[in-house]
Amino acid sequence: MNRGRLIMVPGPTNVPDRVMRAMIKPMISHRSPAFRRLFESLTENMRYLFQTQGDVYALTSSGTGGVECIISNTVNPGDKVVIPVFGLFSERMKEAVIRRGGRPIEIPFEWGEAPSAERIKEAVEAEDEIKAIMIVYNETSTGVTVRDLPEIGKIAEENNLLLVVDAVSILGGDELPVDRWGVDICVTASQKCLACPPGLALFSVSEKAWEVIEETRRPFYFDIAMMRSFSRRSETPFTPAIPLFYALDEALRIIREEGLERRFRRHRICSEAFYDAIEAMGLKPLPEEAVRSRTVITFRRPVGIDGAAVRRVMDEEYGVVIAGGAGKLRDETLRIGCMGIISEAETLLTVNALENALLDLGYNAESGVGIEAARRRFRR
Amino acid sequence: MNRGRLIMVPGPTNVPDRVMRAMIKPMISHRSPAFRRLFESLTENMRYLFQTQGDVYALTSSGTGGVECIISNTVNPGDKVVIPVFGLFSERMKEAVIRRGGRPIEIPFEWGEAPSAERIKEAVEAEDEIKAIMIVYNETSTGVTVRDLPEIGKIAEENNLLLVVDAVSILGGDELPVDRWGVDICVTASQKCLACPPGLALFSVSEKAWEVIEETRRPFYFDIAMMRSFSRRSETPFTPAIPLFYALDEALRIIREEGLERRFRRHRICSEAFYDAIEAMGLKPLPEEAVRSRTVITFRRPVGIDGAAVRRVMDEEYGVVIAGGAGKLRDETLRIGCMGIISEAETLLTVNALENALLDLGYNAESGVGIEAARRRFRR
Repeated sequence: MNRGRLIMVPGPTNVPDRVMRAMIKPMISHRSPAFRRLFESLTENMRYLFQTQGDVYALTSSGTGGVECIISNTVNPGDKVVIPVFGLFSERMKEAVIRRGGRPIEIPFEWGEAPSAERIKEAVEAEDEIKAIMIVYNETSTGVTVRDLPEIGKIAEENNLLLVVDAVSILGGDELPVDRWGVDICVTASQKCLACPPGLALFSVSEKAWEVIEETRRPFYFDIAMMRSFSRRSETPFTPAIPLFYALDEALRIIREEGLERRFRRHRICSEAFYDAIEAMGLKPLPEEAVRSRTVITFRRPVGIDGAAVRRVMDEEYGVVIAGGAGKLRDETLRIGCMGIISEAETLLTVNALENALLDLGYNAESGVGIEAARRRFRR
Repeated sequence: MNRGRLIMVPGPTNVPDRVMRAMIKPMISHRSPAFRRLFESLTENMRYLFQTQGDVYALTSSGTGGVECIISNTVNPGDKVVIPVFGLFSERMKEAVIRRGGRPIEIPFEWGEAPSAERIKEAVEAEDEIKAIMIVYNETSTGVTVRDLPEIGKIAEENNLLLVVDAVSILGGDELPVDRWGVDICVTASQKCLACPPGLALFSVSEKAWEVIEETRRPFYFDIAMMRSFSRRSETPFTPAIPLFYALDEALRIIREEGLERRFRRHRICSEAFYDAIEAMGLKPLPEEAVRSRTVITFRRPVGIDGAAVRRVMDEEYGVVIAGGAGKLRDETLRIGCMGIISEAETLLTVNALENALLDLGYNAESGVGIEAARRRFRR
C-alpha cells in the first residue's frame, strides 16, 4: 500500500495496512451469517477494549454523532445534567444537551485546566434532581485528561447519577476500565487511538444506563434500545458501513494482540518524549504537567511565529501533518495526535519535522535539542 | 480482489474493484487540502447524479439516518406532513415524523400498490396548513416505484409545499431529475444503485428547502445548515468516513463515464429480464406491471415452498444471495436487487440459481424456462 504523509493530527490517524486491507473483503449482506459472525467478533473485541461485561455497540457516524446518540437516549426535555466545560468538545456536549431540551448545569473551567472531582461534588450537592454527570475524559481541543475520573465515578455512584463519558480521543490509548470506574455510558470513535479509519462511533452501556434509556423519548437512527433488540440476532437495525466494521474488527484484534497494558505504556512513553522535546525547544505545553494528555499533545505556538506557517512547512517540506488549535485557541496552539500506531519512529520524525520547520521560520533555538530530548526519553 | 458470493439483495450490492481500491488510499486529515479536493470532486459528481444545480451533501450514516436527517431539518413539532404509506420504508418515514413531534397525514395503500397523484391531490386539498409532501419514490419492501412523481412535484409546487423524496433504493438506477421534477430534498444511500459500500447517505437541498430548514429547530450531528456552512470551505462539520468518501467519489466517476441515460436503460433491461423470467417460471411479481420497480424485483414465493429455503439453497448451492420479504411480507415474498453493476451476467446467473433452487425444492416447472425468457429479453 502507498505510504502517504505521516498523519499526526488528533484523528484521523495513520492506519496499519492490515486494517486497510480488511476493508476490501468482498461485500456481504448485513442480513447474512457472514455478517453475524463479524458482529459477534466485534462485540467480543469491543468488550475487551472497554473492559466491560456490559453491552457494546458500533454505530455508523462520527464521534460527535456518537456523543449526540448517547445524549439523546438519556436526556429528556427538562432533565438536569452536570457538565464541566473546559474546551470545545465539552462545549459541544453541553450544546447537544441544550438541543435535546435538557438543562445543563455547567461547571466552567479555563481552557487548559482539568475539572476536579471536588468542583463536581460541590455542583452535584448544590442542585436537586440531577440526572447525570456528563464529562469529556480527554479534551481534544486542549490536550487535557481528567485524572479525577475514578473519583468522579464514585461521586456519581454515591448520588445515584448516571455517569456518561466522552472518551473519543483517548479510549485505547490510556486507562479507562469502564466497569471498574463506574462509567455507565462511554463513547469513542474509530479514527483516534484505535488506528482505524473514521466513520464509526463505539459505545458501552451499563445496566443502570438501560433503566434511563428505556424511559427516554428516543430518536430513530440513534435509538440504542433498537440496537439492543437487533443485537440479539447479531445484527444492526440499519445497514452499517460494512468495510469499516471489518476494519474495526481487525484494529481491535491488533489491540488484543498487543494487550491494553502495553498499549497504554507505549502511548505514555511517546507522549513524554513529545513533551520533553517541546519543552527542550523552549515551547510550552498548554496544560499543567499533572493533567497533560498522553494522546493529544497541545502546546502554545512560539511567540512571533504563525502556527499555520509551522503546519504548512511541516506538511510541504517534511511530510508530517499536525493540527492547529481548536475553537478559540485556533491560532494560539498546535496539536499533535499521539495515538494508535504511535511509536518511537513517528515521534522522532514528527519532532524532527517540527524542529526543522521552526528553524526554517527563524525560530531561535539550538538545532537538534528537541529530537535529542525525545531520543533520551526512549533510551530510559 | 477476491470474488465472494454474488450479492443480489436490494443493497448492499456488488462493488466494483475500482471502488474497493479507492478505499485504501493513504489516510488524510479531514482538515487538509487533499480532503478539500476530494470534497469538491464529490460535490460536482453528486450534482451530476441528482441532476441538480442545488446543494448536495454526503453524510456518514445509513440511508435511514439520511431520511431522519432530512425530516429533522424540516419538521417542527405540530407540523402537518402528507405521507403516502405503502410499505415498510414509508412506514419508517411516518415513524420518523412522529418521533419529531410532527403530524403525519397518512394516505394508506395496500403493500404492492403505488400512490397516485390523484389521491395525494385529494389529501392536500382536504387539509389546511400542510407543510410538505414526503414520499418514498421506490418502496424497497414491495418493489413499487411511484411513476406519478413528476405530477406529485407539480401538486407540491402549486400548493407551495415542500417535496421531500426518499430515493434510497433507486437514485442512479432510474430517472429522477431533481430540479426538473421539483424535488426539494432528495435522499439516497451509497450501497444501492451507486454500487458503493454502505455507510453514506447523500441528499440534495433546493432553495425553497433552505427557507424551511432555517426555521426548524435542528439536531446537532444531522444539522444541514451546519453542513452548508462548513461546505463553504469544502469541509464537513465532523470527521467523515474518509475511505467511503473516496469510494463514493470513484463510484460516481464510473456513473459519469457510463452516463445516466445508459445506466438507466441497463437497469430497465435487466429488470425486464427478471420479470420475464419470473413470470415464465409461473411466479408472480408483487406489483402490477405499470409500477414495477426497475431496481428492486419483488415476487411472491411459490405456493407450498418456503421462501427461506429458496434463499438458503441459492446461497449454499449456487453462491447467489437474494433477500426475503420485508416487514409484514417477510415470509410471503422474495426480493432481488437489480442495482449498480447489474448486467446480463448477474441477471442470468441469478435467474439460473433461482430456477435451480426451485427445482431442487420440488417446484413443478419446466427446467430452463426462466433463463430462456431472460436470455430472450437481452437478445431483443
